[in-house]
Amino acid sequence: MEKDAYAVIFTNRLGADAEGYGAMADRMEELARAQPGYLGHDSVRGADGAGITVSYWAMEEAVKAWRANAEHLDAQAMGRERFYDWFRLDVCRVERSYDFDRTSLEDRQ
Amino acid sequence: MEKDAYAVIFTNRLGADAEGYGAMADRMEELARAQPGYLGHDSVRGADGAGITVSYWAMEEAVKAWRANAEHLDAQAMGRERFYDWFRLDVCRVERSYDFDRTSLEDRQ
Repeated sequence: MEKDAYAVIFTNRLGADAEGYGAMADRMEELARAQPGYLGHDSVRGADGAGITVSYWAMEEAVKAWRANAEHLDAQAMGRERFYDWFRLDVCRVERSYDFDRTSLEDRQ
Repeated sequence: MEKDAYAVIFTNRLGADAEGYGAMADRMEELARAQPGYLGHDSVRGADGAGITVSYWAMEEAVKAWRANAEHLDAQAMGRERFYDWFRLDVCRVERSYDFDRTSLEDRQ
C-alpha cells in the first residue's frame, strides 16, 4: 500500500439475524469502489461469524467522505440495529508495507 | 485502541502445505503476548484460506522488536518457504477508534 494512505480496520461479529446482510454488504462494496480516493479492500469472515474488513484510502478526506455518505450512513445504522453483536473501527495511517508473492518468487527462479 | 498505538495488518493466503502451521501460529501468538508493548490482536481465517490478523502495539519500537525477534524470524522464513501463497504487511499508526457492543447497549436501556 502506498505510504500515507489510510487503512480503516473494521473488526466485527455478526449476530443471529443476518437476513439481508449479504445484499447490504455487496451494495456497500459497490458504493465504496465508486468513492474518490478508494484504493481497495480485503475482507475475511470466519465460520464463527467474526470478520475483519480492511479498506484502503488515498487520503483522510476520502475516509471522512465515505463515513458521511448518505447510503452508507443508513447501512451503518442497520449494522448497529440488526447485524452486528459488536464491532471496532480503527482509522490508521499506513507508514510502510511489505509484500510477498510465491508466484512471482517462482517466476524469478 | 489507544491513539498513537500501532496496528500491523497481516493479510495472507495459506497454500496447500499447511502441516505444522497451526502449532507455529499458536506459538507465535504466545510469544507475541509476551513482548513488551503488545496490546492485543484479532485474527480471522475464511474457508478459502484467506486470513487477516491485526496486532496492536503501544509504540513503534515494539513493532520493530517483534519483527526482529529470533524465533519470530524463523517463523517468518517458514511462512515464506512453506505456508503462504502471498501476504502483505501494513504497519500503521492508529489515529482514532470507535467501538460498538450490543450487550452494553442493551445493558444501558
